[in-house]
Amino acid sequence: MGGSAAVPHEADGHLRVTYNDIHVTIGACAARIKAEFDPDIMVFFPARVLRTFLKRVSGADGKRRNIPIQAIGLSLYEEVGAFDGSSGLAQEEKLGKEVVRTQWLDFSTLGNRPLIGRRILIVDEVDDSRTTLGYAVAELKKDIQAQFDKLPEDKKADFPETKLAIFVVHNKLKEKRATIPDDVAYFAGDDIEDKWVDYPWEQEDILLHDAVAQKQKELGL
Amino acid sequence: MGGSAAVPHEADGHLRVTYNDIHVTIGACAARIKAEFDPDIMVFFPARVLRTFLKRVSGADGKRRNIPIQAIGLSLYEEVGAFDGSSGLAQEEKLGKEVVRTQWLDFSTLGNRPLIGRRILIVDEVDDSRTTLGYAVAELKKDIQAQFDKLPEDKKADFPETKLAIFVVHNKLKEKRATIPDDVAYFAGDDIEDKWVDYPWEQEDILLHDAVAQKQKELGL
Repeated sequence: MGGSAAVPHEADGHLRVTYNDIHVTIGACAARIKAEFDPDIMVFFPARVLRTFLKRVSGADGKRRNIPIQAIGLSLYEEVGAFDGSSGLAQEEKLGKEVVRTQWLDFSTLGNRPLIGRRILIVDEVDDSRTTLGYAVAELKKDIQAQFDKLPEDKKADFPETKLAIFVVHNKLKEKRATIPDDVAYFAGDDIEDKWVDYPWEQEDILLHDAVAQKQKELGL
Repeated sequence: MGGSAAVPHEADGHLRVTYNDIHVTIGACAARIKAEFDPDIMVFFPARVLRTFLKRVSGADGKRRNIPIQAIGLSLYEEVGAFDGSSGLAQEEKLGKEVVRTQWLDFSTLGNRPLIGRRILIVDEVDDSRTTLGYAVAELKKDIQAQFDKLPEDKKADFPETKLAIFVVHNKLKEKRATIPDDVAYFAGDDIEDKWVDYPWEQEDILLHDAVAQKQKELGL
């Protein structure tokens, strides 16, 4: 019924929203939220572009279904928004640890050996210094090993090899501060020069951003 | 240097990417990922539009910093991508439970009473039947109450009231199957008719999508 396979047509009664429509809508409402609520913490249901392209047939009905997503949060130390101390929650000392976990996999919903035998794709917008990606790979490998070690000996052969891969929209061509192991597949949407990247979700004025981007394309910059 | 406060200019050396650029890049690479890796699980670092608009001054340096984000995953039962049974991980029976948690808050990184006294914003793209939003509010309230109950009696008065709010990009004007309590602030970017919404991140051909959206706007549809 009106699924995405149908040819789009302007009279099909769908409301069609563009990324910029959504950005403008969020920006307008954010001013009210800031004034009236000013949140300390955001809890969100992740949006997902890549998942759209990676649906797979599962189950007996031949339907394409979404693959499970887990969000993780990792920040380089200086990027973390510190809680203020007014409620007695002092910012923990994180000196000497470059990467800070703000969220990790939720094993309470994933079950007790959910990573074993899986193909796990790590997704990020940009591979800059590679520090957080390197951390994510190393920590996931620890979790996978720990789950594998807990398996009874006679079950270990039942699972195919667990595999990790990385997808980043942009890989900056520059010296990296971490190495991705050879057994981890690496996909980059584009390799780009090491210059300042303005992402659309960081913009306050998305229409201006797009206009300048268009001009840059015309000028070949 | 060259932060977002500067007036954008096409010769500033920034790489400026639009939402559609990113969508096209992801789509092109996804075909390779699907062919060469075909993931079972995706682990991602959340992107964030709203956060851009909600930065706040914190710390003594007067800098605007991001507020913490935690991702949660909730699905109505029929939307969940089931693992196949080939690795002995049978899909749990979820009958009678409409909402399925796929990920919840990570209290191992948030600390032991991180919700108390906070203003917590729940963010989603659309409020359709309100079922998952109602579930999220009810479950968060349970967690907040449990954390509050654990506080020593003499500390309970030290915290301001914990507050919840909701932000959705779109609220569909229709009969809802859950109620949001009166003490939860509700922000909708737009109230929309109850029609099929085509979101950009669900599109395989984003340029066609935008062209049809543009035509609809011109025709006032």
